[in-house]
Amino acid sequence: MNNSLSQALKQIKPLDKKAMEAARARQDELTKPRGSLGRLEELSIKIAGIRGEIIPHFEHKAIVTMAADHGVVSEGVTLYPQEVTRQMVFNFLSGGAGINVLARFIGARVIVVDMGVIGGFEPYPDLICKMVDFGTKNMTKGPAMTRQQALDAIEGGIEVIEAEIAKGLDIIGTGDMGIGNTTASSAICAAIMGEPVEKLTGRGEGLNDEQLEHKIKVVQEALEFNKPDPGDPIDVLSKVGGFEIGGLAGVMIGAAAQHIPVVIDGFISSAAALIAVQLAPGLKDYLIAAHLSAESGHRVLLEYLGLTPLLNLEMRLGEGTGAALGMAIVEAAVRTLAEMATFGEARVSKEKH
Amino acid sequence: MNNSLSQALKQIKPLDKKAMEAARARQDELTKPRGSLGRLEELSIKIAGIRGEIIPHFEHKAIVTMAADHGVVSEGVTLYPQEVTRQMVFNFLSGGAGINVLARFIGARVIVVDMGVIGGFEPYPDLICKMVDFGTKNMTKGPAMTRQQALDAIEGGIEVIEAEIAKGLDIIGTGDMGIGNTTASSAICAAIMGEPVEKLTGRGEGLNDEQLEHKIKVVQEALEFNKPDPGDPIDVLSKVGGFEIGGLAGVMIGAAAQHIPVVIDGFISSAAALIAVQLAPGLKDYLIAAHLSAESGHRVLLEYLGLTPLLNLEMRLGEGTGAALGMAIVEAAVRTLAEMATFGEARVSKEKH
Repeated sequence: MNNSLSQALKQIKPLDKKAMEAARARQDELTKPRGSLGRLEELSIKIAGIRGEIIPHFEHKAIVTMAADHGVVSEGVTLYPQEVTRQMVFNFLSGGAGINVLARFIGARVIVVDMGVIGGFEPYPDLICKMVDFGTKNMTKGPAMTRQQALDAIEGGIEVIEAEIAKGLDIIGTGDMGIGNTTASSAICAAIMGEPVEKLTGRGEGLNDEQLEHKIKVVQEALEFNKPDPGDPIDVLSKVGGFEIGGLAGVMIGAAAQHIPVVIDGFISSAAALIAVQLAPGLKDYLIAAHLSAESGHRVLLEYLGLTPLLNLEMRLGEGTGAALGMAIVEAAVRTLAEMATFGEARVSKEKH
Repeated sequence: MNNSLSQALKQIKPLDKKAMEAARARQDELTKPRGSLGRLEELSIKIAGIRGEIIPHFEHKAIVTMAADHGVVSEGVTLYPQEVTRQMVFNFLSGGAGINVLARFIGARVIVVDMGVIGGFEPYPDLICKMVDFGTKNMTKGPAMTRQQALDAIEGGIEVIEAEIAKGLDIIGTGDMGIGNTTASSAICAAIMGEPVEKLTGRGEGLNDEQLEHKIKVVQEALEFNKPDPGDPIDVLSKVGGFEIGGLAGVMIGAAAQHIPVVIDGFISSAAALIAVQLAPGLKDYLIAAHLSAESGHRVLLEYLGLTPLLNLEMRLGEGTGAALGMAIVEAAVRTLAEMATFGEARVSKEKH
């Protein structure tokens, strides 16, 4: 295991219980019936525990959107041509994609990272290059990447988040772009969770029944050929994963190591979370599931991770779009904790006893 | 029926189909798999139909929070003392309540209206007075208000929204404050929907089993005593309603009459919507249910109204807090429609055929 990964893993600590107790006590003093803000109260307390602050504030918010290509696309598992990954990176950079709109809306910056897009990119001011290779290999014919590449992808993610934390960061949302990456994510989940592939494979951008059946077969083939070790997340990532998925796992590990809450997007981000949590079980407490994706398999995966999504808007775009909306809910939660008056301040009577 | 109410009812027109078709066509050209923004796409199309614009914008947003007192509180159906209604109005005016925090967060103004709070208020710059009476009468002993008062409450709501539209308004959220108003709302729902009271009565600010049972009996008593006519929403409002509930129904009618989308909050706002929709069935298309409240009965009520809530965060505070978060989702939806690049603009390949 590389050095910065093992260091980051060691730095992941349990949440700050004292800050959580104090935040809970404050919630109970705010001018509202106890518990009436429901999940917002829980969220604010969780963030207090992650940040180690009774009243956390989000000054700097970001969504990291990681892009990479997938060799398995040559098996015909997608509706969009592979070059869309690269085209969408340009769309991110020019501000026209869904994630740009939603990140602007919530006041978060978008961090665009090339983890391994076919064709590569000229240097571009707003594009971070952590490219591992020009796309993964076709996982039905062999491992998607080498073990070293899997580690490089995760380390790349850690480096990205560490640089962003240095610039100022209080909360991070994760997002992905990679034609073919629902296929890789399904394979990761099936390998680690030991559940049937059918249960974890969905229609991606809109496959029909026949196309879905083919996609399931491709995932099964990849698993049979590569026999990933369910107890070794790096092995799973290398055999059937993707560079952006490894990168996102690294982002989560690096963020948790430095007390930054991570709002995870949909199916692909959750597959990355599955790898990250296998490497560091304590990391789970730093994760907030933004939404339940329309991609089937996501529900089972979130249940396995023990995360309850905040939203269910039948979205399945990826890029971090669900994470952006989830982040707005999290910010609403911390704002109520910070800004609402207490019963004493507002001279409002408490409940009768 | 008063003049401004009957006029507003006549002005409620079906949604603009042409604007909706054009908005849908634009959604399908944006750089994302078709349908992948899920409910955001539907919402943006609905707003286009309400506003009669292909690309709507929300420049002016507001939450209207209407307060009033309830005579039924003397039956011991609440945990908080009645004076909390008045105390919370001061909290709204000084900016310390949950709705102030969440409205600030989403960039909406809060319109605080006294529809009939016991004790009344000195003139206050940010408080709108549409006070019908110092609280309703105890509905277990007679009608909560006269028929004229019910009409006055609705007209008061229409006047409030018309004045706000004149100032500039593109979307409105509704909210309530009134100790005892879940009891009135349950009675309204049971009267109109003909469902058993138990199904529509919840724990309010946190009643225990025994207290809940008592509350159910109080609602049953009020219905038996007053025998509201299920086919006459004004009669239902006068017999078992509340001034703020009538006012909110008026807000919804006045907003729909002028093509303003209405984001309804929880159980009390939905009871107001039930009255409004009985008066003008076409109004339903102008409503967006922000969230599913933790108040039991809300689910059944929303199903009856044919509305699917956007959020389920186990909130039950009222004031418009759920509406504020729902409005953020609606704004996210219209922003994607307005700001995302099309396939042509971004030079992104479309799906293969």
